[in-house]
Amino acid sequence: MTHTRPTLDEGMRLASWARGSERSAMQRMLSIASRPGAISFALGLPAPELFPVEAINEAANGVLAGDRRALQYGPTSGRLRRQVVELMARRGVNCREEQVFLTSGAQQGVNLLAHLLLDRGDQVIVEEMIYPGTRQVLELFQAEVLRVPTDLETGMDVDSVERLLARGARPAFIYAITDGHNPLGVSMSAPKRARLVELARLYHVPVVEDDPYGFLCYDAPCEPPMRALDDEWVLYVGSFSKILAPTLRVGWMVLPESLIPQLSIVKEAADIDTSTFTQRVVSSFLDACAVEGHVQSLRGEYGARRDAMLQALEGSFPAEARWAKPSAGFFVWVELPDGIDMLRLLEESIETENVAFIPGQAFSVSGGRGGTPAMRLNFSHNPAGRIGEGVARLARLLSRFR
Amino acid sequence: MTHTRPTLDEGMRLASWARGSERSAMQRMLSIASRPGAISFALGLPAPELFPVEAINEAANGVLAGDRRALQYGPTSGRLRRQVVELMARRGVNCREEQVFLTSGAQQGVNLLAHLLLDRGDQVIVEEMIYPGTRQVLELFQAEVLRVPTDLETGMDVDSVERLLARGARPAFIYAITDGHNPLGVSMSAPKRARLVELARLYHVPVVEDDPYGFLCYDAPCEPPMRALDDEWVLYVGSFSKILAPTLRVGWMVLPESLIPQLSIVKEAADIDTSTFTQRVVSSFLDACAVEGHVQSLRGEYGARRDAMLQALEGSFPAEARWAKPSAGFFVWVELPDGIDMLRLLEESIETENVAFIPGQAFSVSGGRGGTPAMRLNFSHNPAGRIGEGVARLARLLSRFR
Repeated sequence: MTHTRPTLDEGMRLASWARGSERSAMQRMLSIASRPGAISFALGLPAPELFPVEAINEAANGVLAGDRRALQYGPTSGRLRRQVVELMARRGVNCREEQVFLTSGAQQGVNLLAHLLLDRGDQVIVEEMIYPGTRQVLELFQAEVLRVPTDLETGMDVDSVERLLARGARPAFIYAITDGHNPLGVSMSAPKRARLVELARLYHVPVVEDDPYGFLCYDAPCEPPMRALDDEWVLYVGSFSKILAPTLRVGWMVLPESLIPQLSIVKEAADIDTSTFTQRVVSSFLDACAVEGHVQSLRGEYGARRDAMLQALEGSFPAEARWAKPSAGFFVWVELPDGIDMLRLLEESIETENVAFIPGQAFSVSGGRGGTPAMRLNFSHNPAGRIGEGVARLARLLSRFR
Repeated sequence: MTHTRPTLDEGMRLASWARGSERSAMQRMLSIASRPGAISFALGLPAPELFPVEAINEAANGVLAGDRRALQYGPTSGRLRRQVVELMARRGVNCREEQVFLTSGAQQGVNLLAHLLLDRGDQVIVEEMIYPGTRQVLELFQAEVLRVPTDLETGMDVDSVERLLARGARPAFIYAITDGHNPLGVSMSAPKRARLVELARLYHVPVVEDDPYGFLCYDAPCEPPMRALDDEWVLYVGSFSKILAPTLRVGWMVLPESLIPQLSIVKEAADIDTSTFTQRVVSSFLDACAVEGHVQSLRGEYGARRDAMLQALEGSFPAEARWAKPSAGFFVWVELPDGIDMLRLLEESIETENVAFIPGQAFSVSGGRGGTPAMRLNFSHNPAGRIGEGVARLARLLSRFR
């Protein structure tokens, strides 16, 4: 922190995490991919045609007609917190209103928990492939990232977690996406959930359970989240973005009540409060509408889109490509033959086929090349017909690509 | 960071800033003050009866009827950024769309800038009395706070800033509220604005100019903000919370374009994006409604409330009490005779007079007792009659308090 007297040529000094960080070539390519006619499997967007626009509009009208305090700063809605308790009960989670903390979405939830738990340079255990929004948070804290592998059928390698802890790692938290992993699509097996919770208790390391997709299971109901097994060491992060609409920017956490005073300080420092208006809109939607019916229809439609994507892959992708059937969430993870340069593949895909995806290496924690060449394909955003067309174009490219 | 094997009795490890932080006795008292019949001068709330509810409702209906992408994740609205450019032009600021960065409110703006500019333990220059939302942000970063005094008629003591810089201080930024200072009510004089900008340029230290009240000047138009004098070292933070409604959670910053890529990383890590819906509602309001007319009516009404408070103070407060007339913002800062125990005064005020305010020491950076006993009185939230009644009750208490 010692600086000589600055000269006029010197630029502004930034925080150390920010030095040298820059927009990647991939991000540039992906912004090109929003041009007309493009089929994008790149982003994790819900389908706009499934947003319950009329119900949200009705809820918004009711809220604005009702009470001017809907436009004011305000304490979080007790009614919405009680509704979250009911929602969680459907997932097999037993919690109380006092354990529910409302957020401006799941990303903010993870960010606030990092501020609460993490000192700069602290250790964190994550999987080798990680949701980039969480990676960004860890980068801000310059966390020491300890990586464990993921099995594509059963999820996080919990034995590796145990080895790290047994050898003396003392992470501030373990980060897990239990259902419909982003980017890998996998849901963690029930025995692994139980074992990870045991480790958290034994080593007194909290697990941040990021669960944006746990209500979107397509074959059978999802296993209960880890929070159903433990109310002390599992910090659950939920979101209305995927089951209602992202624009409301409302999510929640379920946590030990003892964390809430300090968490409230972080939240207030972040953005004072979550919009009173959108909290009430969500609350009114949950009251008025059979939310179970809405979520059921999402499951039907997104499940059909997943099946359309799997069928298209089956019918046209090269025999060496491998993927697992995701039981939840928005993504299929496709591994391709060794030696394929994924950035070049993406570039050609955008140039010649007008199709976008995200190369697997973009999710690698180390930021390096990653292992097996892979692509994350989103199936939630496009209707089945477009999915078939986009996969066919990708297959055509792959057949001539070397 | 060395830890012995944790035992079952050990609690969860928190980030170091959070150890020992707890809810203050004052916060407990203030939550009591929300009971019926209470008159609260404590919080900085806009008047709900002045919210343009019908116009917002109309805008919301239009947005929801128009385009389902209003409910989706999305890039920030270019239209709203262009409207901010026009708004800023009315303050004498010349900026371009590419320099406007939309946020979920001014608090988030300051928070994002701290993440961009501040390493843990870095120096920051602030005034001795500071807006608590900013103090919370600095506490998260365990910043080394360098304090300068404030003159109640002309604002921040810029000579003290110069002395600190000349002696070798190298702060990550200088934090300033130019108009309607919270909590002191003062607006910085034009010569001080110019001098602070000169210092920022000379020493290459950015100034974070927090300006939630700059559109709410009651006597003459506010002086142009510092951003009007410099587009390189002044980082301007604005908000729609006070001129439209807090619930929309939309604010903006005006910054050098070169900062925006890294700032976008911090923003995405914070909450992915600001609600597409509320951005469009604000945009539609700005289009449909003569915003100048709305702000003009706010100035008239808030100015009248300020005058009601000053008149009541003049007529009933003890002769030793001192205050200045704020030309902008939401607050009057009242200094009381030495020796008054402000926490006990607040307690009695709540118990016997049902009136709440915030004792000056709550804004002190050191967290200590502060200097002169003082109170921050908000005049925006209550109608003039209630203001008169509340001040009379406070005066009655002061006359018997020793």
